Amino acid sequence: MAYFKNIGTIQYEGKDSKNPLAFKYYNPKEIVAGKTMEEHLRFSVAYWHTFTGEGSDPFGNGTMIRPWKSYTGMDLAKARLEAAFEFFEKLNVPYFTFHDRDIAPEGDTLQETNKNLDEIVSLMKEYMATSKVKLLWNTANLFTHPRFVHGAATACNADVFAYSAAQVKKGLEIAKELGAENYVFWGGREGYETLLNTNLELEFDNLARFLHMANDYAKEIGFAGQFLIEPKPKEPTKHQYDFDAASAVAFLFKYGLKDSFKLNIEANHATLAGHSFQHELRWCRINGMLGSVDANQGDPLLGWDTDEFPTDLYETTLAMYEILQNGGLGKGGLNFDAKTRRGSFEPEDLFYAHIAGMDSFARGLKVAAKLIEDRVFENFIDYRYRSFKEGIGLEIVSGRANFHTLEAYALQNREIKNESGRQEKLKAILNQYILEV
Amino acid sequence: MAYFKNIGTIQYEGKDSKNPLAFKYYNPKEIVAGKTMEEHLRFSVAYWHTFTGEGSDPFGNGTMIRPWKSYTGMDLAKARLEAAFEFFEKLNVPYFTFHDRDIAPEGDTLQETNKNLDEIVSLMKEYMATSKVKLLWNTANLFTHPRFVHGAATACNADVFAYSAAQVKKGLEIAKELGAENYVFWGGREGYETLLNTNLELEFDNLARFLHMANDYAKEIGFAGQFLIEPKPKEPTKHQYDFDAASAVAFLFKYGLKDSFKLNIEANHATLAGHSFQHELRWCRINGMLGSVDANQGDPLLGWDTDEFPTDLYETTLAMYEILQNGGLGKGGLNFDAKTRRGSFEPEDLFYAHIAGMDSFARGLKVAAKLIEDRVFENFIDYRYRSFKEGIGLEIVSGRANFHTLEAYALQNREIKNESGRQEKLKAILNQYILEV
Amino acid sequence: MAYFKNIGTIQYEGKDSKNPLAFKYYNPKEIVAGKTMEEHLRFSVAYWHTFTGEGSDPFGNGTMIRPWKSYTGMDLAKARLEAAFEFFEKLNVPYFTFHDRDIAPEGDTLQETNKNLDEIVSLMKEYMATSKVKLLWNTANLFTHPRFVHGAATACNADVFAYSAAQVKKGLEIAKELGAENYVFWGGREGYETLLNTNLELEFDNLARFLHMANDYAKEIGFAGQFLIEPKPKEPTKHQYDFDAASAVAFLFKYGLKDSFKLNIEANHATLAGHSFQHELRWCRINGMLGSVDANQGDPLLGWDTDEFPTDLYETTLAMYEILQNGGLGKGGLNFDAKTRRGSFEPEDLFYAHIAGMDSFARGLKVAAKLIEDRVFENFIDYRYRSFKEGIGLEIVSGRANFHTLEAYALQNREIKNESGRQEKLKAILNQYILEV
Amino acid sequence: MAYFKNIGTIQYEGKDSKNPLAFKYYNPKEIVAGKTMEEHLRFSVAYWHTFTGEGSDPFGNGTMIRPWKSYTGMDLAKARLEAAFEFFEKLNVPYFTFHDRDIAPEGDTLQETNKNLDEIVSLMKEYMATSKVKLLWNTANLFTHPRFVHGAATACNADVFAYSAAQVKKGLEIAKELGAENYVFWGGREGYETLLNTNLELEFDNLARFLHMANDYAKEIGFAGQFLIEPKPKEPTKHQYDFDAASAVAFLFKYGLKDSFKLNIEANHATLAGHSFQHELRWCRINGMLGSVDANQGDPLLGWDTDEFPTDLYETTLAMYEILQNGGLGKGGLNFDAKTRRGSFEPEDLFYAHIAGMDSFARGLKVAAKLIEDRVFENFIDYRYRSFKEGIGLEIVSGRANFHTLEAYALQNREIKNESGRQEKLKAILNQYILEV
Repeated sequence: MAYFKNIGTIQYEGKDSKNPLAFKYYNPKEIVAGKTMEEHLRFSVAYWHTFTGEGSDPFGNGTMIRPWKSYTGMDLAKARLEAAFEFFEKLNVPYFTFHDRDIAPEGDTLQETNKNLDEIVSLMKEYMATSKVKLLWNTANLFTHPRFVHGAATACNADVFAYSAAQVKKGLEIAKELGAENYVFWGGREGYETLLNTNLELEFDNLARFLHMANDYAKEIGFAGQFLIEPKPKEPTKHQYDFDAASAVAFLFKYGLKDSFKLNIEANHATLAGHSFQHELRWCRINGMLGSVDANQGDPLLGWDTDEFPTDLYETTLAMYEILQNGGLGKGGLNFDAKTRRGSFEPEDLFYAHIAGMDSFARGLKVAAKLIEDRVFENFIDYRYRSFKEGIGLEIVSGRANFHTLEAYALQNREIKNESGRQEKLKAILNQYILEV
Repeated sequence: MAYFKNIGTIQYEGKDSKNPLAFKYYNPKEIVAGKTMEEHLRFSVAYWHTFTGEGSDPFGNGTMIRPWKSYTGMDLAKARLEAAFEFFEKLNVPYFTFHDRDIAPEGDTLQETNKNLDEIVSLMKEYMATSKVKLLWNTANLFTHPRFVHGAATACNADVFAYSAAQVKKGLEIAKELGAENYVFWGGREGYETLLNTNLELEFDNLARFLHMANDYAKEIGFAGQFLIEPKPKEPTKHQYDFDAASAVAFLFKYGLKDSFKLNIEANHATLAGHSFQHELRWCRINGMLGSVDANQGDPLLGWDTDEFPTDLYETTLAMYEILQNGGLGKGGLNFDAKTRRGSFEPEDLFYAHIAGMDSFARGLKVAAKLIEDRVFENFIDYRYRSFKEGIGLEIVSGRANFHTLEAYALQNREIKNESGRQEKLKAILNQYILEV
Repeated sequence: MAYFKNIGTIQYEGKDSKNPLAFKYYNPKEIVAGKTMEEHLRFSVAYWHTFTGEGSDPFGNGTMIRPWKSYTGMDLAKARLEAAFEFFEKLNVPYFTFHDRDIAPEGDTLQETNKNLDEIVSLMKEYMATSKVKLLWNTANLFTHPRFVHGAATACNADVFAYSAAQVKKGLEIAKELGAENYVFWGGREGYETLLNTNLELEFDNLARFLHMANDYAKEIGFAGQFLIEPKPKEPTKHQYDFDAASAVAFLFKYGLKDSFKLNIEANHATLAGHSFQHELRWCRINGMLGSVDANQGDPLLGWDTDEFPTDLYETTLAMYEILQNGGLGKGGLNFDAKTRRGSFEPEDLFYAHIAGMDSFARGLKVAAKLIEDRVFENFIDYRYRSFKEGIGLEIVSGRANFHTLEAYALQNREIKNESGRQEKLKAILNQYILEV
Repeated sequence: MAYFKNIGTIQYEGKDSKNPLAFKYYNPKEIVAGKTMEEHLRFSVAYWHTFTGEGSDPFGNGTMIRPWKSYTGMDLAKARLEAAFEFFEKLNVPYFTFHDRDIAPEGDTLQETNKNLDEIVSLMKEYMATSKVKLLWNTANLFTHPRFVHGAATACNADVFAYSAAQVKKGLEIAKELGAENYVFWGGREGYETLLNTNLELEFDNLARFLHMANDYAKEIGFAGQFLIEPKPKEPTKHQYDFDAASAVAFLFKYGLKDSFKLNIEANHATLAGHSFQHELRWCRINGMLGSVDANQGDPLLGWDTDEFPTDLYETTLAMYEILQNGGLGKGGLNFDAKTRRGSFEPEDLFYAHIAGMDSFARGLKVAAKLIEDRVFENFIDYRYRSFKEGIGLEIVSGRANFHTLEAYALQNREIKNESGRQEKLKAILNQYILEV
């Protein structure tokens, strides 16, 4: 059956199209900077928001009208799966992502839960065989069930650690089975509510033990996907351990895990941590840690994860700028970890929202590519830092300078001349590129 | 001459004293947890706020009435120095801290500036010889002068890097000369305003080069103090590189600098970064990075560094709790990086404010010591994590478990039982300890 | 049956008691400032958090262990009611509050829903007849059901407005039936998600129409309780219309409603709006708008309504200070709009949490009473503003001055002398009062 | 002499121009929605940021290179004035704004200060006679001098109140002399640092007395400009009395001042208060309070007033949308209360920054005009609220409904049908208009 009856395949019709259910900027086959848009923009649909999410919030019940909601249990899981592949196809999107519990319900025992999973995974594999859509990443939901109330790998209860391990083991097997290109760790309950009752050191140690075991097991079964850690500073816990990119990397360094992981950067998580999205992407890029992206946006005036679809062209442009400078995302992609607003509860809104996000990133890609092609910022920066290419600057970056030589230089160097950073001019140029590309 | 004529030495008179210019909780010779209060609470006065600060803000000129303000140039520097030692003595405080430019004015050339410094340092050494006060740390002001507009060690201009190196070289020599127990690096302009004009990678690389050179030079001259990095997330720059403890440590790891540095944690910098003060202290403690503390507090409703004197007893108690658990601060201390409000502009306010801070930490010390002595949180935590002391938990922490054994365990373990974290009860107990110690 | 079997009545045992299930500061019969603690502290239990709340959050299912959870439908409603009155009695609390949907489930039609309500209200009245507990206020839940997705009185759909009116009509009838001392309006969905789709003017106009109708109906049925508006700046909507006290009052002024309403100030809502709790209380006090208080606290580092039990003694002291200066709350009370943390899921935690809150306010009351008795701040303030009691100051406050006379005065008045505001000293004194009362 | 030697008049060269010192979107004579761009966009240069500002911040001294800085005292004031009119002319901007102390230095006495002012005002009038530039508004600086440490009209010291009155009296005379179209009240120190030492009621009363006197005096001298209050929530004080638009209006209502004032809305002040710029504009618009605009922008990740030049096209578009819907700003304008970054210290940056802001608002104007012409949001909103145009909805808005009729309606109305708010679709359409206009 068809769940989205009134909607045909979403196509590129160009910016002048009057059809609101068409791409205006995203033209998958268009070549930008030597690759097709589709190759650059490895878009992915998030199962949880789009097929499982109900539209509830802390003050209200679900609002979403979803044609598959009449089913329950495994029938619901199957209906969702069918709807998902219909959606992927109509949207013409190459990737999807899921948590284990998004795709199949828990049973009374872990055995039963795993059986449910196996059945859906098997069906999913069949769908994938006849579809172009691939699994960008899967992950384990170690936060919704009450058993995770005090954490999963960082729980105060060893039984919960063991349960979590079993769940991730299964998740890795599914990842391998479905050819996932990555596997994600988001520590939804790996944090604390209060230090008054928390053994912080043991919790960090256990988290490291858990990740080492996951690493070992992935090697054992030959799962070749990239491991990704997804930072978030707070929510649901008061303090999440993977607060931001730097926190996650400090942890990985300490426990000898840095080479086994990259980061999955989410825009809204970045801003909740007090960073711009671009900052987190740039920081990962220059540290060789940029793995994948959760493409959404927050509301800068709200203090929680709003997971809005990304429509801010400044954000999409600067994100694509970093991604292009990174040589792309490798195995990673642009995953719409985003939900239609609770008031956008009709099935059509799922299309409007994804189109909005895809078009915004498509425009961002073109703007970023042109900025790089024209070396707009590169030339400015090269000139700005030119003093490190000769003389005392070259001594510094080549490691030949020391405090003695630098002091000697400074003592004889009478006048230091700085130049304007030209922030306002650069922002005006950015505007012009966004508008005129 | 006396700059604080109406004020005698501040003494402990006990909580029932009606003298507002007396300590009510800080009794330096009182023994707490095996050491005197004075040994635990290595209080330090910050030269810049107390002797140099004018009380200006972005919308207003200085308001502070300071008896030494009639002087200028080197005379002002000497008057300040005299006032400072009078203040230290009257307040009975064991340490102080300064930036190079707090104690002596810049001259027309670096040579002249250094000469000014030499003269004051020499005088300072004389004062110290006859005083009990010692130098907790000194540091270089690499942020006030316009030459640092684009950074110091991370400037886009090699001349500025060289100048900064010369300045820190001198600072290390002064540290050695005066027997400083630490040397602090706060990167007041080491950050960026916009990524559009910033070579982030080069700036980080240069910062590391700078710190390596400082390290080398300290060894060369035999300076045995502890090197400290002081994190702050923003202000003055939009994004400061040492954003928080974890950011600083990720950087130190990457560049092979971790063993040469500890951190100087400031309460207000912690909260600006989205962390509690206790969080940053605990994180440093379990990572072996807790070096020293800038003892102030912010206003949680304001988005800038208010540098208020610490009076919140929850903060001082939990800070002292972490410090006691750390076995003290070693060479570090509690530096009042705090300023009287712009409206508290009379000289007496300097005493009221420091007394408020010292009393608050003294009470915090006693409460923390009693909490630890009674093992209030320790017993709760030990019990809470007891599952890691036997069975599958012991397998986990001893490194014998893996995903196979954990899955086998989870599959047969039918019911997971969690227990309440008792946050409300623990907070009530904390209140009782604060009130009744 | 008994739902809280292991817990007897909570009594005052004094601060030295080792019984964690006893009051240490709240002694209901103790006289403070001329009245009993119980008369000052009109504590109230919130039905929704304590009896209906499940402990779910946006990332997790409910965790709360509640002995009545085995029931469903109306049986659950009755079991909750029984448990509630057992709880009120054991806690020895004089008031409670509820939303209509907390106490009885919705039926298939509004008729059926009202019938459910009638049945429970009738039972509740019976319980109240043999209990000392009274209804501080009730209110209508106009936010949980999907019908309110776009608002209630400010919905874009007239049917929703009508439904909301019917619901509040019923609520007022219940208020009268049960002798509620107040009736509360919290506009949980009265706000907007985006101005792009919002007729802001019509929504405000409709809200005013709604409140006028409520006013008319209360008069018609002779409900003599106080009407209260409860401000909150955001959450669940992006922007709530009753943003803060001043916003609510600007609205009431515009629509001729100011005399019919007072405000119900919630601590956590105040801080989310960028105000201190004390600020909102003081502002209401001097504007004659202080009606009642939702006694909770937020986490200053989190951007959402955490609704924690109030344990911060600074907050409880300063709140009671304003309340005492207001001559008490009149018909209002201290309603614990607070929930045990999701990790504090055992029934005992409900007691620990309420005891923590009641003890904290009891201590706050005593501290505030002593501060007022000693005129600690009053004397300082009287002296500080003394210039308005004579000369040109008296001219100003008596309305006799104008720009001519003031200019003439200023032109001849050569030196303006200000005095320190002594913030640090006042904070130290506040600490001493908190600790030593 | 010429202070900006290398810069000719800034002209419209169109978006394809390669000249970075030309307008690309702002074409003053182009007709948009029936008026010229110049008539719509009443741009104004802020004297304080552009001619007086030094580029200092709380951690650094001034950096700005300004050709007139070699002068001092009244010579400096005159040089600035000359530079200002050169700048206005080259930028082709129709308005400017100033504080009294921006244009002339304080003397030793108020008499002398006023004499300095008179001299400059007289000169300014001469410049204005031969220039097209007009005075949008002037205001009094009641915050920089230490005398205002505890407030101006809300000071605890009657002498300060009197001095402030004298200063505003003079300001109104200057406003009349120079034909200012408005007069602004920004209460830079009208707020408090701590309630512990504050008589909040007296301070509000005095503020009202002050504004009444100002009103009286303006009438007396026949000043016909619009009075404007400029809200700001915090900074420099911890809590500013005119927190936001609603706070200011609640105050004006209470003291019978509402009809004498409109509001001057600043973008960055709006966001510091937790509101979007558009929210404050819309709120003022529907309350008849929109007077003028301070056109700048903040950084959503920073907690202080950054006063950046406005370049965000979303903000400029939605601001112009509200202004067009308001029928323009009347006597108000778009005042660039914005400063070049401290790192943009060259004179050219003043041009780049103003061009960036003017171009951004010009584009915003065109986008907004097209959105309105096409009734993009209006049609959606009309349809969305259509239920209030007939039946029960019409009963409600016409005042004929009451709780009885509404309940009767609700009881028989079985199913409520809501429709999606289409936020994502609307945002995608907004993007398309921004890009394609």
